[in-house]
Amino acid sequence: MLVTHPADVRYLCGFTGEDSWVLMGPGWCRLITDGRFAEHARSECGDIEIAVRTGPAAGEAVTGIKEHRVRRLAIQAQHMTVRVRQVLGEQLPRVRFVSVVNAVGQVRAVKTEREVRAIRKAVRVAERAFKELLSGGARALVGQTERALAARLDYLMRRGGADGPAFDTILAAGRHGSLPHYRPASTVVRENQAVLIDWGARVEGYCSDLTRVIFTGRIPQKIGEIYGVVLEAQLASIARIRSGVACKTVDASARAVIAAAGYGKEFRHSLGHGVGLEVHEFPQLAGSQTGRLRSGMVVTVEPGIYLPALGGVRIEDDVLVTRRGRRRLTSLPRDIDAMVVR
Amino acid sequence: MLVTHPADVRYLCGFTGEDSWVLMGPGWCRLITDGRFAEHARSECGDIEIAVRTGPAAGEAVTGIKEHRVRRLAIQAQHMTVRVRQVLGEQLPRVRFVSVVNAVGQVRAVKTEREVRAIRKAVRVAERAFKELLSGGARALVGQTERALAARLDYLMRRGGADGPAFDTILAAGRHGSLPHYRPASTVVRENQAVLIDWGARVEGYCSDLTRVIFTGRIPQKIGEIYGVVLEAQLASIARIRSGVACKTVDASARAVIAAAGYGKEFRHSLGHGVGLEVHEFPQLAGSQTGRLRSGMVVTVEPGIYLPALGGVRIEDDVLVTRRGRRRLTSLPRDIDAMVVR
Repeated sequence: MLVTHPADVRYLCGFTGEDSWVLMGPGWCRLITDGRFAEHARSECGDIEIAVRTGPAAGEAVTGIKEHRVRRLAIQAQHMTVRVRQVLGEQLPRVRFVSVVNAVGQVRAVKTEREVRAIRKAVRVAERAFKELLSGGARALVGQTERALAARLDYLMRRGGADGPAFDTILAAGRHGSLPHYRPASTVVRENQAVLIDWGARVEGYCSDLTRVIFTGRIPQKIGEIYGVVLEAQLASIARIRSGVACKTVDASARAVIAAAGYGKEFRHSLGHGVGLEVHEFPQLAGSQTGRLRSGMVVTVEPGIYLPALGGVRIEDDVLVTRRGRRRLTSLPRDIDAMVVR
Repeated sequence: MLVTHPADVRYLCGFTGEDSWVLMGPGWCRLITDGRFAEHARSECGDIEIAVRTGPAAGEAVTGIKEHRVRRLAIQAQHMTVRVRQVLGEQLPRVRFVSVVNAVGQVRAVKTEREVRAIRKAVRVAERAFKELLSGGARALVGQTERALAARLDYLMRRGGADGPAFDTILAAGRHGSLPHYRPASTVVRENQAVLIDWGARVEGYCSDLTRVIFTGRIPQKIGEIYGVVLEAQLASIARIRSGVACKTVDASARAVIAAAGYGKEFRHSLGHGVGLEVHEFPQLAGSQTGRLRSGMVVTVEPGIYLPALGGVRIEDDVLVTRRGRRRLTSLPRDIDAMVVR
């Protein structure tokens, strides 16, 4: 198999550099990298073959495929480019190519203890930075732009040990909270407003992913109402998590609470997703999924209600699936009273 | 042509969202996006067709290709995945596919005035943040880790108006300067040390890219010596820039200075590259290139000398190619005396 997806490369051989591929077969594994990362590769992947390419990666892959007399080659069709596929096809006329989709991703869904520890660290760094951001009270938030506050949160995560944010931080004031994928702008945070923050840290390559809604004073009435519904939906769905439970069952349990409150149409995305080396990975907690949870998976649980022109509420925690139930890896409070920044 | 490379999509229709493609033919252009960016698309690309997909992008592309009765389709072989190519091939058995490489990239190499203004802004934000980082004097640097200082520089750029850093900031203390692609670590900056900083801002989508070596006190003798050589090489090669000059000639003029000083082998990368929507784009200033500079191109000029276990010097500015010569877009001082932080 020729592994060209960066997160899979890292997962399979522990290599933290960039622009590198893994070629592997029964009993052997070769990292294809370049001069920039040669030293890196030798210290991180001492027990496998290391090929330091001087030309294009595809050419080096061809060399490895020939040396190991590969006759059938699995490729990652969702990641390999047409150009690379062409080169391989031309130079390896006798090799049979097999497209595989998500083969490594399915393995990555179940975390080892070491991986869970890394995710925990990423959670801790994100939570500490969040607390630090709020430590100045509402006074330190009101009058600042969304962008400035998002930049500060990212900085606090890095100062706290993150390699960087796990994704572009969302910080949406007031009505902007109704846009699930909002990007912070020059809008100024005001008093008595809800502010939705969706953020996470990357530590040792692993991601955390959280969302909280905070209030800079009084809680707007309608937002307070949907906050209660979203929190109830989150608690109900987290309570369903256990090894063996269908992913769609967990999604449905949150959806039922929100629908019963009359906001079914305003919960416009799936309940959650796996988190690890990538911020979005297997499994998906969605109605369309056929899979089941397994012990060792780490998933986000993030129901939301979005009211256009008014605002939105999403509450998101990271949860480890265990044999008998679940363990919440995040520990920030989420009761509405705790979300008011004094 | 089906345009799947994000920077090309943005270039062709001004769309700033993500995960979107452009399909275009003679006299028509269609943006393929999804619900998250539909509003965005309508405000940014009002004059072209907008298709908001609900299923996979490839399926929506098939629809557009059929509606416009396309018979020959150019695809970006270096960006399109094997999976997408398979779907298109299966669903469009009568279409002839033509792989193109760098077609849009070659057009993007020559900047419009509006683009040059955006790059200038990105330069200004990066330069201001750099000055702010150094404004506390050597005292504010010594004792800090490389990572903390890099994080602070990134934060200052964002606070100054950047969407973010244009790439992962390099901040390399002492001997780490000899690794051109070093990643800041927990190493502490000391007194009387050279610190190599390679950074840039992204503003309105456009990048800047600079490198300076600063000194936290006394200038280490050997580093001072190579600094003079690198600066001379940079000045000599910038002086050669003019519309019509071969890219490799500019590279050669820097290389000649460094070789004459006996460090030819220690200048281990090409002289520079185009900068714009991407931090690395056309043209390349390298010995292997056959192209010529054209008025409106913006290139980095960044010779370097790297001495393993000792340190390195690289000096990098962004330069606009004009009909009669060049204009330096960066304005930070680079005389060695100006690089000593008091």
